[in-house]
Amino acid sequence: MAKTKIDSNVSIYPMPVVLAGAVVQGKANFLAIGWIARVNYQPPMVAMSLGKRHYTNSGIREHREFSVNFPGVTLLEKTDYCGLVSGREKDKSQLFTLFYGDLKQAPMIQECPLVFACKLVNIVELPSNDLFIGEIVEAYAEEACLTKGAPDIAKMDLFTLTMPDNNYWMIGGKAGKAWEAGRTLMW
Amino acid sequence: MAKTKIDSNVSIYPMPVVLAGAVVQGKANFLAIGWIARVNYQPPMVAMSLGKRHYTNSGIREHREFSVNFPGVTLLEKTDYCGLVSGREKDKSQLFTLFYGDLKQAPMIQECPLVFACKLVNIVELPSNDLFIGEIVEAYAEEACLTKGAPDIAKMDLFTLTMPDNNYWMIGGKAGKAWEAGRTLMW
Repeated sequence: MAKTKIDSNVSIYPMPVVLAGAVVQGKANFLAIGWIARVNYQPPMVAMSLGKRHYTNSGIREHREFSVNFPGVTLLEKTDYCGLVSGREKDKSQLFTLFYGDLKQAPMIQECPLVFACKLVNIVELPSNDLFIGEIVEAYAEEACLTKGAPDIAKMDLFTLTMPDNNYWMIGGKAGKAWEAGRTLMW
Repeated sequence: MAKTKIDSNVSIYPMPVVLAGAVVQGKANFLAIGWIARVNYQPPMVAMSLGKRHYTNSGIREHREFSVNFPGVTLLEKTDYCGLVSGREKDKSQLFTLFYGDLKQAPMIQECPLVFACKLVNIVELPSNDLFIGEIVEAYAEEACLTKGAPDIAKMDLFTLTMPDNNYWMIGGKAGKAWEAGRTLMW
């Protein structure tokens, strides 16, 4: 295979697409992000990175709570809108039907098949981004999207993101079983 | 929609699948991980979370360098194997053809369509995991997998991961244009 050196500002392929929710200036606000990953197993924690200029950051700092909402493809336009328009300019609190669990500053989106709410644990200050680390304290899923009590991606119609080409993609067919397919190589 | 409260140890859907590479005890070693995201725009940084018990962690701590390798589906079994078997028990340095760029302790996999090498910037100590934050200092891609000089997911045959069902999935068809589809809602 022939390798070429490319720009080091390289993306992760593919990225999940979520709506990060927080209460900013008294109103629920949502930002579309792809820079998110689980980071601790027990207690369950997630980290998400937001550019420092974003409006959402101040709400997370103030209330130390945020939500993570996984939109299905029927919400693609609204999700993309939440990445195009800042809460500084437009009120996004009416875009979705909201509900709250135990964390009253972590607005969750009823139309999303999977949502969870986090307590802020730590903020890692990076040069251009704030990395918010939160403990997942409650999670809710659409009943119809569960298999054996856990979310089933085949039922959620989620989509993924790639950059810098800026495309959303559906999830494809099954490619194999994890922690199993490699057993054929154990010798 | 009818929401049900589920176990808060909830996953991100879907997760990318990469092989994290490091030199441990003088040998290249690779671990399959899905807990990875970009975290800083400029300079480009990535964060990846590894359970503290993993063999790879000590190599990253010692040399302060690591690689991130995106396997195509033809490497699915080998990738899964790298998640099943610890470098403590099996030498994984011969599984792939390796090459090195400027960072001599960041082994990259020739068979992967996209790879990059990182200098360690910070380790965030979490209760059960080490969160390694690295600056991406060099990236290489297969020439045949580029479109306009950037990696093209439609050409790379990557796969994704879901847990706790432990399935790998292909990437599906295009679902829309990011930073564009939501313009219809701008009023």
